[in-house]
Amino acid sequence: MSRLLEMPNARQGGGMNRLDELNKVLRKLQSDSPGIETCALISEDGLMIARAETVNMEETRVAGMTATLLNLGTRAAVELGRGVVQEVIVRGDQGYAVVISAGRGTLLLAVTNESSKLGLIFFDMREAIRALQRVL
Amino acid sequence: MSRLLEMPNARQGGGMNRLDELNKVLRKLQSDSPGIETCALISEDGLMIARAETVNMEETRVAGMTATLLNLGTRAAVELGRGVVQEVIVRGDQGYAVVISAGRGTLLLAVTNESSKLGLIFFDMREAIRALQRVL
Repeated sequence: MSRLLEMPNARQGGGMNRLDELNKVLRKLQSDSPGIETCALISEDGLMIARAETVNMEETRVAGMTATLLNLGTRAAVELGRGVVQEVIVRGDQGYAVVISAGRGTLLLAVTNESSKLGLIFFDMREAIRALQRVL
Repeated sequence: MSRLLEMPNARQGGGMNRLDELNKVLRKLQSDSPGIETCALISEDGLMIARAETVNMEETRVAGMTATLLNLGTRAAVELGRGVVQEVIVRGDQGYAVVISAGRGTLLLAVTNESSKLGLIFFDMREAIRALQRVL
């Protein structure tokens, strides 16, 4: 058994399971909140970790824009005396993009349609963040 | 009377009255919403038009950061397929910075403390925007 754990394949298998768990949390977030078109876990330096979506978007664009939003939010929070950034929200006439710090250098993004309610999105995203933190 | 209207002083006087009215709307927004520390009407190119505040902040920093937030919000809304940007919200652990398009190339900024409720801030800001639009 200890030899099996040392095999590269076994390690890869373990990695896949963790990623599967992250993807599962994101799929649940999306299926529980019908307004969420895309949700993704992204590193603060703009790299995609896991995602679930109904509408396909280019991965590097989504991840990069998420990190950019949090970077600017960080600067704005400091310059306007609001402390440490927790969330950045952009509302367009076709829906919301919400970025929340998910801890340990990760960000949770949700992109929703225009019929979504911000309060419910927050509620569902915070539930998801608790589940993601148990896996990370 | 028509000669009076052509005098530079009369024009300046008219301008002051309009600015007074804008400042009055902002002071009302701030006094009605005790959590709002600073509110300001800013042009999309980052110039201060009118403001009301309990906490003094450097004018160019506040105006520039507001325009920067809306510019990035515009880009994020387009790249993430959310249409035309309406609002950008940054929550820090010490409160919110909320930027809403106020029409005709202007932005309304509210900087609040951490005990503020986002729903009430939105409600009060939208009331203020209607009043500002009657003056602009």
